[in-house]
Amino acid sequence: MDNPILVEVTRGPQVESRHRGAVSVVDAEGTSALALGDVECRVFPRSAVKALQAIPLVETGIADRLGLTDAEIALACASHSGEPEHVKAAAAMLAKAGQEPACLECGVHWPLGDAAMQALAREGGSPSALHNNCSGKHAGFVCLACGMDEDPKGYVGPDHRVQRAVRAALEDITGASHGDEVRGVDGCSIPTYAVPLPALAYGFAKFGTGQGISRGCAAAAERMRGAVAANPFMVAGTGRFDTLVMEALRERVFVKTGAEGVHCAALPELGLGIAVKCDDGGKRAAEAIMAILILRFLEPEGEARMLLEAYARRTLKNWNGIPVGEVRAVAPLTDVR
Amino acid sequence: MDNPILVEVTRGPQVESRHRGAVSVVDAEGTSALALGDVECRVFPRSAVKALQAIPLVETGIADRLGLTDAEIALACASHSGEPEHVKAAAAMLAKAGQEPACLECGVHWPLGDAAMQALAREGGSPSALHNNCSGKHAGFVCLACGMDEDPKGYVGPDHRVQRAVRAALEDITGASHGDEVRGVDGCSIPTYAVPLPALAYGFAKFGTGQGISRGCAAAAERMRGAVAANPFMVAGTGRFDTLVMEALRERVFVKTGAEGVHCAALPELGLGIAVKCDDGGKRAAEAIMAILILRFLEPEGEARMLLEAYARRTLKNWNGIPVGEVRAVAPLTDVR
Repeated sequence: MDNPILVEVTRGPQVESRHRGAVSVVDAEGTSALALGDVECRVFPRSAVKALQAIPLVETGIADRLGLTDAEIALACASHSGEPEHVKAAAAMLAKAGQEPACLECGVHWPLGDAAMQALAREGGSPSALHNNCSGKHAGFVCLACGMDEDPKGYVGPDHRVQRAVRAALEDITGASHGDEVRGVDGCSIPTYAVPLPALAYGFAKFGTGQGISRGCAAAAERMRGAVAANPFMVAGTGRFDTLVMEALRERVFVKTGAEGVHCAALPELGLGIAVKCDDGGKRAAEAIMAILILRFLEPEGEARMLLEAYARRTLKNWNGIPVGEVRAVAPLTDVR
Repeated sequence: MDNPILVEVTRGPQVESRHRGAVSVVDAEGTSALALGDVECRVFPRSAVKALQAIPLVETGIADRLGLTDAEIALACASHSGEPEHVKAAAAMLAKAGQEPACLECGVHWPLGDAAMQALAREGGSPSALHNNCSGKHAGFVCLACGMDEDPKGYVGPDHRVQRAVRAALEDITGASHGDEVRGVDGCSIPTYAVPLPALAYGFAKFGTGQGISRGCAAAAERMRGAVAANPFMVAGTGRFDTLVMEALRERVFVKTGAEGVHCAALPELGLGIAVKCDDGGKRAAEAIMAILILRFLEPEGEARMLLEAYARRTLKNWNGIPVGEVRAVAPLTDVR
């Protein structure tokens, strides 16, 4: 089944590029509210499920025992831009577990944000694993290992107790099998399991409502949603979609990007979860799709509406600031509701 | 008509993302050697036609009169990475026209290459229009204006004598109409005209062979091909596809990337031109497609073959250097020939 074109990129009088994709919106009972494209195809959720992967850290009580702050819990769910606050918080989490940055197994890359990259270079610095966009998630894994009295060494491996706990949490909340036959290796070396979009959306509906999961898991989800809503900067960074949208909507939405055009969200007040995959991995398209879905389902007003409308139909400007085209969500997305 | 999937991105056991596109390969008489997808759809060639846009500069004799070197002529055809050699050469071109960098109308951006960006930040610098990837092309436009005794001011406008000359050159070599109804504004503010892929491929077949164009234009094309073959670094930069491929194949191929997944090439010894458009604008896919097309048509040996095979089926490594998947051209591309 061919997925529909969901986003067009225009230049002057013409469509210049096109993005196809699939969308699933599901409630906490697993009932579909919207399905576009081939939603049964399994998709690697990548970083979009970082919050679900952090459930064991909070649900076990280890986050509290180590005294992790809300900002640090938010960072455990983050694909951050490597700005100084992110780097500092990741180091602080490791220190609370009695560990050094050298124990991180995520690899090293320059900060994702150009401004953060330039700032680090300007001060003569070079990146460490703390700058890796996944360093907060990994610091959370190290905390989980230490809290379980487990040697963190090798915590990225699928058979380490940390990843077994993470996998169990993912299977429990999504209801989808996470077998070895659908396992890939993520950018930061942990396992990533391909699951159908409705399972992802279902997981986020449960994460957003606490329905259909244990009381402990529901309490952990509530704690994490509150921590992120209070610290949207920690989940992404300056000028990033997830940060801006959660700054505007706070507890009304939890939204998280993943690599290769995946984007997931929970809309707690509506009891809905959303999962998006852009076929070609395009971030600009996934953001336009997520923006119009939040607009159509949540119907926010004021600044939040303006922000989301600007992402659902984004003006492209060239290096001289001249508007040259648009990135815009198109039908069938614009026909939703 | 839906364009076929031409490139798959895998992770572990699964296809993670997919890129669709269209391809046209045409000879200098306009006969099609290969057509995949909807090749009649008009496509903005963007920076892929910089060499064709530079024809008036060389054909008028102005490049020679101003004493432009081969490296500078290559830079006029470039989407460069903003490395020090590129910046220096763009400034030198302007000086030969008696102009200052302030006359560039391309806008300012940080160097495209991360390493060049970091180096500039590390020395406390900030970017100027000379760092814009189009600064060589724009310096060429300024040279053309000055050589025609025309005020360069406003040279990016469609009605300026420079852009009228460029448009005439594009219409002449591609045989396609370049009307206002298909005109968009490019990233660097000059006009870009949407044309069908076979017209682009036809233009590059003529550029590569000198057939079907005036003697003066053919001489200019030969001069430019030689200049680029001798200076592939000037056309792109460290580690970039176009630079690496032309370093390996020299005069046997002229290849140039454009924004939004466009890639064009000339294969002079076969008399063929190639034009590629990835539907979603994906550069990784356009490079894989171009690599397999050069492999299939030119059948190079040795290092050039290894390089192109590595692009046609590229191993993806994560931040720890672990292979996690591939970007690979698939059938119908792998069935060509």
